[in-house]
Amino acid sequence: MATIKDVARDAGVSVATVSRVINNSPKASKQSVAAVTVAMKKLGYRPNANARALVNQSTNTVGVLVSDVADPFFGAMVKAVDNVAHEHGKHILVCNGYHDEEQERKAIELLINSRCESLVIHAKSISDEELIAYAEEVPALVIINRSIPGLETRCIALDNYRGAYMATEHLIKLGHKNIACLASSHEIEDSTQRVEGYQAALDAHNINLPASFIEYGEPNNDGGETSMTNLLAKSLKMTAIVSYNDYMAAGAISVLQENSRQLPDEISIIGFDDGLIARYLQPRLTTVRYPIALMAEKAARLSIALARGEKDPSEVLMFSPTLVKRDSVQKQAD
Amino acid sequence: MATIKDVARDAGVSVATVSRVINNSPKASKQSVAAVTVAMKKLGYRPNANARALVNQSTNTVGVLVSDVADPFFGAMVKAVDNVAHEHGKHILVCNGYHDEEQERKAIELLINSRCESLVIHAKSISDEELIAYAEEVPALVIINRSIPGLETRCIALDNYRGAYMATEHLIKLGHKNIACLASSHEIEDSTQRVEGYQAALDAHNINLPASFIEYGEPNNDGGETSMTNLLAKSLKMTAIVSYNDYMAAGAISVLQENSRQLPDEISIIGFDDGLIARYLQPRLTTVRYPIALMAEKAARLSIALARGEKDPSEVLMFSPTLVKRDSVQKQAD
Repeated sequence: MATIKDVARDAGVSVATVSRVINNSPKASKQSVAAVTVAMKKLGYRPNANARALVNQSTNTVGVLVSDVADPFFGAMVKAVDNVAHEHGKHILVCNGYHDEEQERKAIELLINSRCESLVIHAKSISDEELIAYAEEVPALVIINRSIPGLETRCIALDNYRGAYMATEHLIKLGHKNIACLASSHEIEDSTQRVEGYQAALDAHNINLPASFIEYGEPNNDGGETSMTNLLAKSLKMTAIVSYNDYMAAGAISVLQENSRQLPDEISIIGFDDGLIARYLQPRLTTVRYPIALMAEKAARLSIALARGEKDPSEVLMFSPTLVKRDSVQKQAD
Repeated sequence: MATIKDVARDAGVSVATVSRVINNSPKASKQSVAAVTVAMKKLGYRPNANARALVNQSTNTVGVLVSDVADPFFGAMVKAVDNVAHEHGKHILVCNGYHDEEQERKAIELLINSRCESLVIHAKSISDEELIAYAEEVPALVIINRSIPGLETRCIALDNYRGAYMATEHLIKLGHKNIACLASSHEIEDSTQRVEGYQAALDAHNINLPASFIEYGEPNNDGGETSMTNLLAKSLKMTAIVSYNDYMAAGAISVLQENSRQLPDEISIIGFDDGLIARYLQPRLTTVRYPIALMAEKAARLSIALARGEKDPSEVLMFSPTLVKRDSVQKQAD
C-alpha cells in the first residue's frame, strides 16, 4: 500500500503538506490540494483513520455496548444510536456484553481504549461503583436502561415499577383477581422492579395471593414455556398473567394453546416491550410499551453533546411506559 | 490523561521499555513488567488502541457491513460473526448500508480506512465491479449473501432459486395448482432468483399461470399486507401462496384473517428465512430455512484465515436452503 511519503514525492510537496490536505487544514493551498488529491487517487493511498485519530485525539466514533445485538430489542437500540451518529457524521463501534460481568468490563475497556469519543452503555452485571469510575474517566459516557444514584443526569432509564403496576392494574380493573406473574430469573433491577410493581398493584387493591403465583424463568420464549408449564402444574385458579416481556408471553401462549386453554376467554395475558412479535401473536398481544428507540436516541444525543464539552443538562431522564391494548386481555366474567 | 512518558518516568524505565511491556514483547524483563504495570495503574494510563494499531499495522478488528442491524435477520448474522471474532480475541465494527448504494460505499470505505483486518460484507446495491475492486485491495474481504462471478471463493451465498423451487414444489406435491407468489420489489438477485425458482417449479409440472399471480411489495410485514390485499382484489382462484420471506407472510396472514379466509384449510402459505417469528405466527409458519448464522460463521472464519495470509481454500461456498414443515400448509382437496 502506498505511504504518505509516496504521495508527497508524487505530488512534489512535503509530507506535512499532504497531512494538511488530508486533515482539511485551511493552510493548504489550492494547488497543493489538487496535486495531493491526484497523487492519492493515482497511488491508491488511503489516509489511516487510526493515525488521524492519534493526531486529532478523536475517532469520530460512538461506542455502543448492548447485551446481545441479535435480540431485536437491542437491534432497535443500536439502530437508533446509529441514526443519531450518522446525523453528526460519526460511526458506531458495537460490542456485546452477553449479560456477563467480565464481558461487560472487557467491552467497556475496549471501547475506551479505542478512544471512542462518545459511549452509550447498556450494562447490567457490573457494579454501580465500577460504572461511576468509568463515567468519571469518560465525560461522554451515558448509561441506558439503568439508573445509578449519583449519576442520574447521565442515565436514561425506564420506570419498570410503573410499567408492571400499570399492567397489573389494567387486569384488576377488568375484574381479574387471580393474576399470576411470569418473572425474569436474571438478577437485575428490571426483574425486581417489575415484580414490585405487580405486587404493589395487588396490595393497592387488597388482593392477597400466595408466592406460588410468581414463577421465575429466563426472559425469552423458552423461559416463558418452562415457567408457564410450572404455573399450570401448580393447579392455580388464575384468570390472568402479567409477563416479564413479550417473548416470555409468546412462550406462555404456546403452552396455554397446547393445553387447550382459550385465550383470552379463559386466561388473559399481558406482555412488556411491544416488540414486533407482539403484533403477530395470536391473540395479538396487549402489552406495555418500552420506548427503547426513543430512549436510545436521547442517550446518543446526550453523549454527543457531552463529548463536545456541552454542559450536563442536569435533567433526570426517566422515561414512562405506556399501555398498548390489543386482543389478549378480556374482562373477567364473575 | 497520563502519557507514556509519565509512565516511563514513574517506573524509572525508558519509553521504549514501557512500549515493550504494553506490546507483550519477550524482550521486557520481569522487573520492567512489574514496575510499568504498577505505574500504569497508579497514573490511570491507558495504552491507545489506535497507536498500537499504527505500530502493529492491525486493529484486531473484524468489520461487518449489514443492511440494517435492527432487522433480526442481520442481528443473527452480526452475532455469529461476533462469536467467531471473540474466539480469536478480536472485536467487531458494525456499519449499516440501509439498502442504499452510496451508504454501502461509504460504509466500506470507513471500514477499510479504519484498517479492519477482516471484512464481512453484505452489500446488495453497489456493483460487482466495485466489490471486485475492494476485494482486490483488501485480501480478507468476504462477501455474504451474494455470488459474484470471478470472486466465487470469497462469496458465501445461498441458493435462492432452489429455495423457492423447493417451496413451490412442496405445494404442487400436495395438490395445489393455483399458487400465487408474493415477491420482493427490491432490485436484488434474491428477488429475481426466487421468482425464477417459483416459475421453474410451475413449468416443470406443466402449470401455467398468468403474470397476475405474482405480486411485488416491500419485503417486510407492511409489504406483505399491501401485496396480499392486491392479490385478493384481483379475485384469483388461488389455494396457496409462496412468500418472499416470513415477514411478508406475516403481513399476508393478517390480511387473510381479516378477510375471514381459513388458514390452512382454504389457503396454504409458505415463508422464507425461518426467523423466530415463523414459530409464533398462527398457524405456525411452514417455511424455507435460510441458515444465516451458519453462513455468517463461515464467512467470519474465512475472512480471519485470509487476514492471516492463509491460502484461499478455493471452495465454492453455496449453501442450501431446507424445508421446515409446520402448520400453514395443507393438502389441497380436489
